[in-house]
Amino acid sequence: MTGLDRLISYLSRLPGLGKKSAGRIAFYLLKADGEFVQGLADSIARLQETIKQCSICGNYTEQDPCPICNDISRDRRIICVVEQAQDINTIEQTGEYRGLYHVLGGAINPLDGIGPDSLAIESLMRRIAEGGVNEVIIATNPTVEGDTTALYLHRMLAERNVAVSRLASGLPVGGDLEYADRTTLARSLKSRTEM
Amino acid sequence: MTGLDRLISYLSRLPGLGKKSAGRIAFYLLKADGEFVQGLADSIARLQETIKQCSICGNYTEQDPCPICNDISRDRRIICVVEQAQDINTIEQTGEYRGLYHVLGGAINPLDGIGPDSLAIESLMRRIAEGGVNEVIIATNPTVEGDTTALYLHRMLAERNVAVSRLASGLPVGGDLEYADRTTLARSLKSRTEM
Repeated sequence: MTGLDRLISYLSRLPGLGKKSAGRIAFYLLKADGEFVQGLADSIARLQETIKQCSICGNYTEQDPCPICNDISRDRRIICVVEQAQDINTIEQTGEYRGLYHVLGGAINPLDGIGPDSLAIESLMRRIAEGGVNEVIIATNPTVEGDTTALYLHRMLAERNVAVSRLASGLPVGGDLEYADRTTLARSLKSRTEM
Repeated sequence: MTGLDRLISYLSRLPGLGKKSAGRIAFYLLKADGEFVQGLADSIARLQETIKQCSICGNYTEQDPCPICNDISRDRRIICVVEQAQDINTIEQTGEYRGLYHVLGGAINPLDGIGPDSLAIESLMRRIAEGGVNEVIIATNPTVEGDTTALYLHRMLAERNVAVSRLASGLPVGGDLEYADRTTLARSLKSRTEM
């Protein structure tokens, strides 16, 4: 196996890349600027040693606690609960949320053997028990697993003195009724908002 | 800029990757097996120093001449001319060709300032002048640039004592007439083969 074949086989194991796109990238790298290629290799090689998980919220960060947990200008009364650390990026990009986060590390999925104990729920409860939090927004995915997790969290939080909400499900903005799937449409009917 | 942002910005410069898919790959690498991540980084870092171009045909190779030029079992009377080194892989995968190759390094494209002098045409002529070659298959892309290059090569080769052919253009096997574009259909009509 040559270095080129080895690289293609590595690349094709990355999410979203098949054998063809891996080949295209490998040949691109062969001809690319040497400095760029070394920079890419370095940043992959050093990734796991520089990026850690925040000990408070579970966000990916180079410093612990992470910049969001450390930011005194953020609203510490609200915690938004997400499945994965990358979901934080997605929500931050909306610019609509100024509270804190908590990363569960997945969603309840009995078929894959993922129960509540596999998720960072205990640390969430501890953060709430420490006081100061008055709202929890559950931002798990609108999937069976995400819904199950949201229901479980809702029950766990019922005895605490916090408001619990969930991200609205419905038609995507700019979408077309015609292209909405039945489940989404049904949910957006059920959650219709008064005008 | 954190190491994660830096990696995402590097990845999004690769062909076929946008900001979203680059992010997905970066987060995948964060959680991936450390050995795999280091292997990937190494094989990117060492790529350009280990892979060179064959001094005879221009193929990417770790040894010079490349394994194809060195393979005494291959038919040295036929040279297949391709635009890019990766085209060799594509043709090899068909298992239908047992001759040698020659990489032009592109196609004639006056708008981009690529004339015949920018391509490895002189070295092709030298290989043919050395004798022993009796057929040249032109496997440039079925594009305006590829067609121009094929015509140019055809003219250059007219005085030599070699048969010159070109890859057939037409309907893709397993395709549907309905989905064929007009140009492809027109060409496949013109190049129709007797049954």
